Amino acid sequence: MYRLHIANKNYSSWSLRPWVLMRQLDIPFEECLTPFESDSNWSSFRTFSPSGLVPCLEDGERVVWESLAIVEYLAERHAGIWPTDDEARAWARCAGSEMHAGFSPLRSLCPMNCGVRVRLHAIPDALAHNLARLDELWQQGLERFGGPFLAGETFTAVDAFFAPVAFRVQSFGLELGAPSIAYVERLLALPAMQQWCQAALDEPWREAGHEAEVQESGTVIEDLRRLS
Amino acid sequence: MYRLHIANKNYSSWSLRPWVLMRQLDIPFEECLTPFESDSNWSSFRTFSPSGLVPCLEDGERVVWESLAIVEYLAERHAGIWPTDDEARAWARCAGSEMHAGFSPLRSLCPMNCGVRVRLHAIPDALAHNLARLDELWQQGLERFGGPFLAGETFTAVDAFFAPVAFRVQSFGLELGAPSIAYVERLLALPAMQQWCQAALDEPWREAGHEAEVQESGTVIEDLRRLS
Repeated sequence: MYRLHIANKNYSSWSLRPWVLMRQLDIPFEECLTPFESDSNWSSFRTFSPSGLVPCLEDGERVVWESLAIVEYLAERHAGIWPTDDEARAWARCAGSEMHAGFSPLRSLCPMNCGVRVRLHAIPDALAHNLARLDELWQQGLERFGGPFLAGETFTAVDAFFAPVAFRVQSFGLELGAPSIAYVERLLALPAMQQWCQAALDEPWREAGHEAEVQESGTVIEDLRRLS
Repeated sequence: MYRLHIANKNYSSWSLRPWVLMRQLDIPFEECLTPFESDSNWSSFRTFSPSGLVPCLEDGERVVWESLAIVEYLAERHAGIWPTDDEARAWARCAGSEMHAGFSPLRSLCPMNCGVRVRLHAIPDALAHNLARLDELWQQGLERFGGPFLAGETFTAVDAFFAPVAFRVQSFGLELGAPSIAYVERLLALPAMQQWCQAALDEPWREAGHEAEVQESGTVIEDLRRLS
């Protein structure tokens, strides 16, 4: 069976991607969670991940790191990772890849932190541009391939790549067009997303760096984590 | 025939990746170069690229943006993009994906600028960590798959993803282990890399933002561009 290394469900947006994809597609795996430690450069992750980063997938003796490489590895072995339609698959890879290397302002100013609700101090231009592009991209996918998911009828890797954005939109109250907000709600309602979120709220760990990032961006108006 | 949109060869590390891959694999394409314009947010790129970024591949009516998505698109249509060996292909995708979303200090402190030679003001810890990881990763690939390329005998997409690093090492005199330096020299000697570099040196354009990035990192000790 696969073994998927992840970090805190509350914080680790990269971990969420393959996790939610495998859960939604009923691909069995053993979850192995190692919490972030402050001031350690997360060097403990190097014991299982060559890059020192999560997620990292073990398939027997083989180690596959990096969310996008994990997705392509799974796509060679399981149906449904990418859309079967040529046009939809090409589009899905473009959109997923754009998320993988882009949207830096969104990622740094609105870090994933499932349990908190935050009022942003401001919406800098760079973030506004990210949100406009997100809206445009999502609406293009939803319209062109007919929804309810970004590349058509089923949840595929491109939805997994944007799954962390759904939590960001929820936490930071980000404003998007109606079709995008409906899509966010659809993602948040998925059983796997609900399960991830519940586990995040139950986590006992707080990592100073991740908490500080949120404080820099806005005022925490609610903290739903049970042990805070 | 494919049409590949790129920006300045002197600066655009993302453009180089699919360009050098397609050239090395003899995949015919028409090149369409749009130079960066200062202070425009490169909005002119939006006329051909949905994300406003290069590279962007046109295949008839279909538009494929993002370097990694272009690579996977080509991999479905041409042999040789990724290694045929399972183990090598998985590794190559991990390493390419790690480059796609990572190595930020290397990318920001040592921006690709083929024509200049620079003495860095300093080597911050974050850059040193990037170089150590690069060394480790490259040596792992070269040893495990036998070289002379990262995933074995032939130039594949993972080499294309690190091709811009070869120019960075050359421009900034970055120190790496002997096997890594030999690999850099091998990349720089490839006909497609030589052709790209010559064209970069012949470009008449200078873009203030890209030039300023270099100035912030170090002292330019040589400028080989013909029209400077």
